[in-house]
Amino acid sequence: MAWCVLSLSAASAQPSNPIEVDLLLTGGTVITMDRAARVITNGAVAVDGAGIVAVGSAAEVASAITALEIVDTSGRIVLPGFVNTHTHAPMVMFRGLADDVALKEWLEQYIFPAEAKTVTPEFVRVASALAVLEMIRSGTTTFVDMYYFEEVIAEVVAEAGLRAVLGQTVIQFPAPDAARPADALARADAFIQAWAGHERITPAVAPHAMHTLDEATLVLVRDLAMRHDVPILIHLAETEDELRIAQERYGRTPTSYLESIGFWGPSVLAAHGVWLSEVDIDILRRRGVGVSHNPESNMKLASGSAPVPEYLAAGVDVGLGTDGAASNNDLDMFEAMRFASLLHKLQRRDPKAVSAQASLQMATIGGARAIGLESEIGSIELGKRADLIVVSMAAARQTPMYDPISHLVYATRGDDVIMTIVHGRILMRDGRVLSLDEPAVLAAARRLAAEVSEAVR
Amino acid sequence: MAWCVLSLSAASAQPSNPIEVDLLLTGGTVITMDRAARVITNGAVAVDGAGIVAVGSAAEVASAITALEIVDTSGRIVLPGFVNTHTHAPMVMFRGLADDVALKEWLEQYIFPAEAKTVTPEFVRVASALAVLEMIRSGTTTFVDMYYFEEVIAEVVAEAGLRAVLGQTVIQFPAPDAARPADALARADAFIQAWAGHERITPAVAPHAMHTLDEATLVLVRDLAMRHDVPILIHLAETEDELRIAQERYGRTPTSYLESIGFWGPSVLAAHGVWLSEVDIDILRRRGVGVSHNPESNMKLASGSAPVPEYLAAGVDVGLGTDGAASNNDLDMFEAMRFASLLHKLQRRDPKAVSAQASLQMATIGGARAIGLESEIGSIELGKRADLIVVSMAAARQTPMYDPISHLVYATRGDDVIMTIVHGRILMRDGRVLSLDEPAVLAAARRLAAEVSEAVR
Repeated sequence: MAWCVLSLSAASAQPSNPIEVDLLLTGGTVITMDRAARVITNGAVAVDGAGIVAVGSAAEVASAITALEIVDTSGRIVLPGFVNTHTHAPMVMFRGLADDVALKEWLEQYIFPAEAKTVTPEFVRVASALAVLEMIRSGTTTFVDMYYFEEVIAEVVAEAGLRAVLGQTVIQFPAPDAARPADALARADAFIQAWAGHERITPAVAPHAMHTLDEATLVLVRDLAMRHDVPILIHLAETEDELRIAQERYGRTPTSYLESIGFWGPSVLAAHGVWLSEVDIDILRRRGVGVSHNPESNMKLASGSAPVPEYLAAGVDVGLGTDGAASNNDLDMFEAMRFASLLHKLQRRDPKAVSAQASLQMATIGGARAIGLESEIGSIELGKRADLIVVSMAAARQTPMYDPISHLVYATRGDDVIMTIVHGRILMRDGRVLSLDEPAVLAAARRLAAEVSEAVR
Repeated sequence: MAWCVLSLSAASAQPSNPIEVDLLLTGGTVITMDRAARVITNGAVAVDGAGIVAVGSAAEVASAITALEIVDTSGRIVLPGFVNTHTHAPMVMFRGLADDVALKEWLEQYIFPAEAKTVTPEFVRVASALAVLEMIRSGTTTFVDMYYFEEVIAEVVAEAGLRAVLGQTVIQFPAPDAARPADALARADAFIQAWAGHERITPAVAPHAMHTLDEATLVLVRDLAMRHDVPILIHLAETEDELRIAQERYGRTPTSYLESIGFWGPSVLAAHGVWLSEVDIDILRRRGVGVSHNPESNMKLASGSAPVPEYLAAGVDVGLGTDGAASNNDLDMFEAMRFASLLHKLQRRDPKAVSAQASLQMATIGGARAIGLESEIGSIELGKRADLIVVSMAAARQTPMYDPISHLVYATRGDDVIMTIVHGRILMRDGRVLSLDEPAVLAAARRLAAEVSEAVR
């Protein structure tokens, strides 16, 4: 069915000729996350092809539209799918492999050896299928990834139906998919060209961090991204260590150093952004850099607490992320919202800091803005892509419900998502994932886990 | 069937005469939380009457025991049910009623007016059934409660099959169930006498806090508790405000003030314990006072971060709690564990602070010790009560599994509990609650919610 954008009021004028579309979700509470933050009780969303063609009250939409499939969402919440702005998807295979250890030990005794010994294209294929499965189940419709063999992740994502921004990693040290940074750059170049123009996949380049790359390589990455007009994904000031290294090497903060080499621009997404000064925040604001906030990872690895209220006050676009499952330990964006709100209330000693609404915003439209996709995703609006989730509110722990947004952030989990739609395609219905063979994905992951155990023994 | 404690090695000597018991859980990973922190892969737990009569490897137990009912727990985790050491159970009715507001506004504009207008015995009956339902679903087998009309909560708990320590509130101000503190004391006295000796319910008295009671009443509460030999439950130094008030009124910290009036003793459980000095912690240690740590509530209300690593280092018994659902917003002890571990890693800037094992300990045996029930509950050991839960580990977000304890704390939720057993009785089986009419409980709560909405309008 053709892509069409329907002006509902025009259509309403001709109730005798309802337009037939592919899918109608009707009767639920629609949380639009549009600029007016409209919440429509007994609302409806109509989908045709890959796009949203009507949003309004159930009655209003019903008068203008018929659909091939009608889904009753009464008692449920319909909202834009989550944008997880920072993942290392295949690291779900390292979930729980090493917790409660110091960062250096975690990296050097567990993660790096495990990666060196196990990360192959086949590992990435099995692992990213598991990650994609978990994301579909918990309502993430777009994720922003930094890892190795991103071309394999792209194949898995293309098939499973999610939307993603996939950044091929460039790092100074030998990596599982590139012996030298020059090889990684060449891989990134080829990857970007191979996936340019895909309807759901945005290829990108992911320089690991300012302290794990030399200046020449950082500049080459920047040039590559500009040449192809693709996003750059980078870790920024995640740890106090990075701050110390930047001071020692360059006499500057990581943010200020990257500014000095002309690295920043609106197509850059900085992950973590924990150790930034006011001046640093102003650099990000002026350069239009987006930030990915990862509260659980920052807490679990004891990295620190990002200045999120300051980012929001300054007008920096902030999205939420889970980080890799090795440091979270899941990919659940409901938890990311809950942790974001609770963390900053405590840090600011202010129960009003980072409200439920603010966290939900970061998890949806804020994330879309941070990665430059706000014209396509992040809210339920006419003309945007149909990336939608339907959430059950029936559990005892969600009863009673006075405020749906409070409940989404403070009382709901990924498992409450019962329907996930991306680009108009239903990927999960009634809690059953349609675009992946779930038992096969889980079985393959369990087999692979034996190899990982062996690698860190 | 009679209560019996089986010595497994003695029984093993006579394999030809296996003893018949009521229930056998076999094939799962048994996390005992005993002193040796034994984790038994392919383990078994046998239950007869209300008690645990065998714990060991599946083969070992099978050689000695037959059971009327055998439950295959392969691929699942069997662990002691959680001890939620701080709740206001009926406050589930205020879940999400007022979030993201300052504490004073939260209390004075929402919670107090809602309580004054709606809290009746009937309210407490409907609300505590909802709370008990949520706790059975999420694996809590014992909870420690402070509220009004505790005699109604006791009736609900007695019928629904949970175990609880129920503290009748005494507060200086007019309360829903007592106009004056003297009335509250009389209510507490009658409540304690009515429920003394119940096999699952321990009646207690709950003086609200040192700053909401005068000295005479605090001493009368202490005398009442000693006369009946029952626990005392009190909020302690939850907010910096309480610290300030104590300094202004008595020139002491709240802990030191209560020490000065002879309030402390091993039967006291102090909830929150956020604002304590080293000297205060030493008072609690010397007096054998238990502490209930409520990380989510402390974060959400921006109260502060309790010195949990210091408590544990000092040897103070610390349990975990959720607090009331108005400030959490659920009663899920898996979340309490996750928040406890992540919060203190961040606060101490040490990823080793409060490990998964430490949080699981606080949520089970630590909580049992804090409330003085460690000889009956908190671990899977011969002779203890059969308060057990079975947890599914099958979800994508729990795959793969390298370490079951990491997964319980960092990747599991209340909804993963598939079986809950208290005092040998199965309260939930295959995710279906048997001891409450779930649809009726939810429907009654939803009807009551309309009254609550009206009360704060």
